[in-house]
Amino acid sequence: MLTPENNQTEIMRRQSDYKPPRSLSHWLIGRPLQTADAPEQTIGKVIGLAVFASDALSSTAYATQEILGVLSVAGTAAYDYVFPISIAIVALLAIVTISYQQTIHAYPGGGGAYIVSRDNLGEMPAQIAGSALLTDYILTVAVSISAGVAQIVSAYPSLDPYRVQIAVVAVILIMLLNLRGVKESGTTIALPTFFFVAMMFVTVGIGIFRSLTGTLGVVVDPPELHVAETLVAITPFLILHAFANGTTALTGVEAISNGITAFKEPRSRNAAITLIWMSIILGSLFLAISHLTGQVQAVYSHDETVVSQLARTVFNGRGLLYLGTIAATTVILIMAANTAYAGFPRLGALAAEDRFLPRQLTFRGSRLVYSNGIVTLAVIASLLIIVFRARVDLLIPLYAIGVFLSFTLSQIGMARRWWKIGQLEEGQEVVEAGSVLRYEEGWRTKMLINSFGALCTAVVMLIFAITKFREGAWVVLIIIPALVKLFFTVHSHYKDLAAHLTLDRFSGLPSRQTRHRVIMPVSGIHQGTLEALRYAKLLSDDVTAVHVSIEPEETEKVQKKWKTWGEGTRLVILDSPFRLFIEPLLEYIEEIIDNRQPNETITIVVPQFIPSKRWHHALHMRTADFLRQELLSKPGVVITDVPYQVRRHQEKE
Amino acid sequence: MLTPENNQTEIMRRQSDYKPPRSLSHWLIGRPLQTADAPEQTIGKVIGLAVFASDALSSTAYATQEILGVLSVAGTAAYDYVFPISIAIVALLAIVTISYQQTIHAYPGGGGAYIVSRDNLGEMPAQIAGSALLTDYILTVAVSISAGVAQIVSAYPSLDPYRVQIAVVAVILIMLLNLRGVKESGTTIALPTFFFVAMMFVTVGIGIFRSLTGTLGVVVDPPELHVAETLVAITPFLILHAFANGTTALTGVEAISNGITAFKEPRSRNAAITLIWMSIILGSLFLAISHLTGQVQAVYSHDETVVSQLARTVFNGRGLLYLGTIAATTVILIMAANTAYAGFPRLGALAAEDRFLPRQLTFRGSRLVYSNGIVTLAVIASLLIIVFRARVDLLIPLYAIGVFLSFTLSQIGMARRWWKIGQLEEGQEVVEAGSVLRYEEGWRTKMLINSFGALCTAVVMLIFAITKFREGAWVVLIIIPALVKLFFTVHSHYKDLAAHLTLDRFSGLPSRQTRHRVIMPVSGIHQGTLEALRYAKLLSDDVTAVHVSIEPEETEKVQKKWKTWGEGTRLVILDSPFRLFIEPLLEYIEEIIDNRQPNETITIVVPQFIPSKRWHHALHMRTADFLRQELLSKPGVVITDVPYQVRRHQEKE
Repeated sequence: MLTPENNQTEIMRRQSDYKPPRSLSHWLIGRPLQTADAPEQTIGKVIGLAVFASDALSSTAYATQEILGVLSVAGTAAYDYVFPISIAIVALLAIVTISYQQTIHAYPGGGGAYIVSRDNLGEMPAQIAGSALLTDYILTVAVSISAGVAQIVSAYPSLDPYRVQIAVVAVILIMLLNLRGVKESGTTIALPTFFFVAMMFVTVGIGIFRSLTGTLGVVVDPPELHVAETLVAITPFLILHAFANGTTALTGVEAISNGITAFKEPRSRNAAITLIWMSIILGSLFLAISHLTGQVQAVYSHDETVVSQLARTVFNGRGLLYLGTIAATTVILIMAANTAYAGFPRLGALAAEDRFLPRQLTFRGSRLVYSNGIVTLAVIASLLIIVFRARVDLLIPLYAIGVFLSFTLSQIGMARRWWKIGQLEEGQEVVEAGSVLRYEEGWRTKMLINSFGALCTAVVMLIFAITKFREGAWVVLIIIPALVKLFFTVHSHYKDLAAHLTLDRFSGLPSRQTRHRVIMPVSGIHQGTLEALRYAKLLSDDVTAVHVSIEPEETEKVQKKWKTWGEGTRLVILDSPFRLFIEPLLEYIEEIIDNRQPNETITIVVPQFIPSKRWHHALHMRTADFLRQELLSKPGVVITDVPYQVRRHQEKE
Repeated sequence: MLTPENNQTEIMRRQSDYKPPRSLSHWLIGRPLQTADAPEQTIGKVIGLAVFASDALSSTAYATQEILGVLSVAGTAAYDYVFPISIAIVALLAIVTISYQQTIHAYPGGGGAYIVSRDNLGEMPAQIAGSALLTDYILTVAVSISAGVAQIVSAYPSLDPYRVQIAVVAVILIMLLNLRGVKESGTTIALPTFFFVAMMFVTVGIGIFRSLTGTLGVVVDPPELHVAETLVAITPFLILHAFANGTTALTGVEAISNGITAFKEPRSRNAAITLIWMSIILGSLFLAISHLTGQVQAVYSHDETVVSQLARTVFNGRGLLYLGTIAATTVILIMAANTAYAGFPRLGALAAEDRFLPRQLTFRGSRLVYSNGIVTLAVIASLLIIVFRARVDLLIPLYAIGVFLSFTLSQIGMARRWWKIGQLEEGQEVVEAGSVLRYEEGWRTKMLINSFGALCTAVVMLIFAITKFREGAWVVLIIIPALVKLFFTVHSHYKDLAAHLTLDRFSGLPSRQTRHRVIMPVSGIHQGTLEALRYAKLLSDDVTAVHVSIEPEETEKVQKKWKTWGEGTRLVILDSPFRLFIEPLLEYIEEIIDNRQPNETITIVVPQFIPSKRWHHALHMRTADFLRQELLSKPGVVITDVPYQVRRHQEKE
C-alpha cells in the first residue's frame, strides 16, 4: 500500500480510502464527485446559443420597459421616441458584435474582459475590468430575478406582497442548482431558451400581423400609470437617459467570448457564428417589442410589465398563450441569473489564482464547482434584492455601467493587441498568458474596428454615468474603485507573504538550535497536569511550571501537591493581585522571550481539558484557548496543547 | 526577585508588576482593586435596616395594588375585603419574623435558605431552595424595576410608551453600580430608604389624620378602571387569590438572615433587632396603605399606581409632597433591585463553590465583586422585562412562589436542626458547614415555632400555586425543577471530572514513555514549513511529513521541493480524490493512533501561519484551526502549533 518513490528522501504515496459520509448536502446538491470525474464535454452551436444567450436575450423582457420608465416623466407623448431609441441601441449591438467577433478569434482559450485587459493593458485595467464584471454578475442575478418575479406578479397580482421572499428563494434555488453543478451541455438547460425565443416570436409575429391587418387594439384596462406630478419637457438629456436605460439590452452579450472553450472544434468559428445568431435574435426581438409597445399603447407601471401588457393585448386576454409567454419570460430571466452563477465563480477563481482575491475562491467543492464563489454570489445578490425590495427600476441605475466599462476595456485591449501584432515580423510568435501573437495582415483595419467599438461603448458608459448619476450610478462609481483597491490590498498581502516565505535564494535556516526551554502553566495539580508534565519532560530537561496565584488557598494546595508530584520540577508562582490570569503569565513569558539566547527554542506546554460534551465548555474557564490566542502572535514560541479527556464518558459511549 | 522557598523542589514566588491598563471599564466601573483591598467593614442596626430593608419595604409600593387587581374582577364592591386580607398578611409576616429570629441566632455566619437546607435537609432540598431563590432574585429585579417605572409613568404619563426602555436602562445602570462594587456600609445607600420611610409615614400620617377629621376626600379624576366585562362573584377562591397576590409584601424579608455577617458584633443580636424593626415598619405601612386605599376609593388601573392615587388625594394634588412620595417610591423600588444584585451573585458563587453552578460564577472581577453573576442577573432580568413589557401585573404571578418555597424549606431545615440538637448531650458540639450544634434547653418549643412557620408558608405557597396557576405560576413550577435538574447535571460533570483527575489513591503514571513519533502535515513547502520541520526534528528522530494531494500540480511542486529541503525526512502523500483536506489526514492519523504501541507518544506538529493583521485571516484556509479542533478530541495525541509570522510587517510597525 505504501510504495517508496525515491531512494534518498523517502516519499510514499497512498490513496485515501475516505469516502465522504452521506449527509444533508448529498440530498441537496448530490453525491460528491472525484476530481477525475471533471466533465470534458463540448457543445455545438445550437446548444451553445441556448446556454450562453439566455442572459442577453432575457434583457428584451425589461429593456423596452426601462426606456418607457424614463420617458414617462415627460408624459405618454414622449413614448414616440421609444422606437428610434431602440434602433440606436440595435446599431450599438451590431458594433459590439462585430468587435467581439475579433476577440473570439484572437482568444480561442476564452477572451473575457479580464483576460484581454490583463494580457494587453496591465494589472490595473485588468482589475478594473474584473471588479466591473464581478459587480455586474451580482447585479445580473438581482435584476434578472427581480424582473422574473415582476412577471409572476403581473400574472398573479395577489403575490405582490411576497416579491422579496419569492426572489430570495429563487436565488437560493439557483445557488443549489449550481452547487450541484449544472452540466452546461444538458439539453434540459437549452429548452427554456428555445421556449422563450419561440414564445416571443409567436407574440411579436401575431402582434405584427394583427397590427398590419389593423386588428390589434390597445391595452384593455391598462395598469396604473406611474408618472411624475408635473411633466417635464422632452430634452436631449431625457432622450439620452432613456437610451442609457435601454442599453441594458446589451448586457450578457459578452457571455460567449468568456465561454469559447465550451464549444466544439473549430471553437472560435462556432462561437463566432453563435454570437452573430444571438445578436440577430436579440436585435430583432427588441425592435419588434419596442415597435409593438407603441402600437398597443402599453404604459410604464410598477404593477404590470410591458411584456405582460403586450402579450394580453396580442392574445386578447390572459389565455394559455399569454400564460405561456409570461412563463417563458420568467424562466428565461431566472436562466439569465444562472449565467451569472456560471461567470462569477469562474472569474473569481481566475482572479484568486492571480492572487487578487482570497484563495478560498479557487477551491472546488464536493461537486467540482467553485462552491465558495457560488455561495458568495448568492449571499450578496440576496442582500441587494432585500435592500432594493426586488424592484427592477431601482436596481437598473446600478446595472450596465460595469458591463460597458468591461466592453470598453476589452476592446481597448484588443486594439492594443492588434498594434502589438503589427509590430511583429512575419513568422514571429509571442506567447502570452491568454493567447499567442502572430503577425496578421490587415491588423490596422482590425485595430480600427476594435477602437471604434471601444469608442462607442465608452461614450455609452459616459452617457450612462452622467444621466443616471443621481439615481444610483454614483454607487457603482464608488464601488468599482473600492473593489480595485481591495483587490490590490489582497494582492500585496499574498505577494509580501510569498516573498517572505520563498525558498528561492534561501540559504537554509541558521545553524541547528541547541537549547529547548519548556514553560508549562498550571492552575491545579491533577492527573491531566501530570500527563502534561511528563510530556514537557519528554521535550526537554529544562522545564518550568508556572502557577498564577489568584486565591491564596488554591495556591497553598498547588504548592503542597507540587512537592509531592512535581518530580522536582521548578515551579514559579506569580502573585496576581488583580486576579488576572492571562496577563501576568504573558508578562512572564515575554520576559523569558526577551532574554532568549540565539538558537534557543521556547515551547509553552498547555494542559488543556477537553470535555466529552460540547456544552461542558460552558463550565470551564477556557483559559487554554485564550492563552493560545495571545501566544500565537509572539514570535519565537511554540504552543503545545496536551489534551486530557475524561475517558470514562467515552468508554461508556 | 525570585526567591527559592524549598530545597528539594524549587518553588519561586514573584509579584507580578502587571497593572491593568486604563480602559473604558475603568471609566464605567472604576479602577481595578487588588485582592488585598477587600473591605472588612461592618454596619450597625440603623444602617443595616436601610441596607437590607429596601427590598421588603418597597413591596408596600405594590402589594395593596395587586390585591385590588384581583378583587377588581368582582367589581369595586369587593374592595371591602382589602383591609381584612391585609391583616391576614401582616399576621403571616409576624409568624415569619418570629421564625426567622431563630434562624438568625442559629446561623451567625449567614443563614439563607440555601445554607440551612443544605446543612439540615440535604443536597436536593438545598438545590431546590437555591433555584427558587435565584429565580426570585431575577424576578425581584424585573418586578421592582417595572414597579418603579410604573411610578414614574404615574407622575409623567407621557413617558408611558418608553416603559420597557426606561426599565432596561435602569437594570443596566444598577448592573454598572454593582460591578463597581457598592460599599454596603455607605450612608449614601441608606438615605433613599430613610427618605422612603419618612415620606410614606408622612403620607399615611396625614391621610389618617384627615380621615379621622373627615377632611379626606376621594380620588379626584380617577384613572381608567380596569375591570372585566362581566363581573364574577366574590368566592373564597377569589379572596385566596387576592391574599396570594398580597403576600408579595413578604418578599425580601429573608434578606437580613442572608447578610448577618455584615453586622457589627454582637451580629446575631443586631441582625435580629433589625429584623423586628423592619417587620414593624413594613406591617404598619402596609396596613395603613390598605386602609387608606379604601378610604379614598383608589382603583386598580394600568395607568396610575395606587400609591400615586393615594398621595395626590392626601396632598390635594400633584404638589411637591406628592412628587416627593413618588420619587421616594421609585427610588426604593430601584434600591430593592439592588438587593437582588447583592444576593444573586453571592448565592451563585456559593452554589458554584459547591460545584452546582459553573465555576465562572466564583470569579471576582476587577472590583472584587462576582462580576459574572451580576451580568448574568442583568441579562436575564432585562429579557424578562422585555418579554413581559415591564408590566408588574404580568410578572407578579411568577413572583413569590420561589420566596415562599425557600421560606418553607428554610424553616423545615431549622425544625430539623432543633430536632438534631435535641438528640445531643449537654456539652456535645457538632460542627456543620454553616453552624455549630450545641444542646439547648427548650429545643422543642423552638422546633414547634419553626414548624408552625413552615406550615404557614407552605400553605401560602400552595394557595399561591393553585390560585395563580393559570396566570403564570405554572411557568415557575416548570422552571424550578428544570433548574434543579440542571444544577445536578453540572454537579455530576464536576464530580466525574474530579474523580477522574484526582491524585488521591493515584499511584503515578505508568512507566516512562520511550518512543516519540512526530507527524507534520504540510500543504506547501516554504520557510515556515522548514521552521516547523526543524522543530519537529528537535522533538524526535521519527518525523513523518504528510501532504494531502488535492491539485496534482501542487503535489508535484511539493514533492520536488521536499527532495531539496526535506533533509531526508519521510514524506507521505495522501491522494484525496474528493478534494478534502482534513478528512484523509485524520484517517491517516487515526490509523497511526490505532497501531500505537504502549508507551508511545504521538505529536502532531502543525505549521500555522499567523497573519499580522486580523482581516488577513479571511485570505487563508485556516486548516490549522480546523485540524486542531478535530485532533484535540482524539486521546493520545498532542498538538503543537509552530507559528510563523510575517515579521517584515511587524518590524515596520
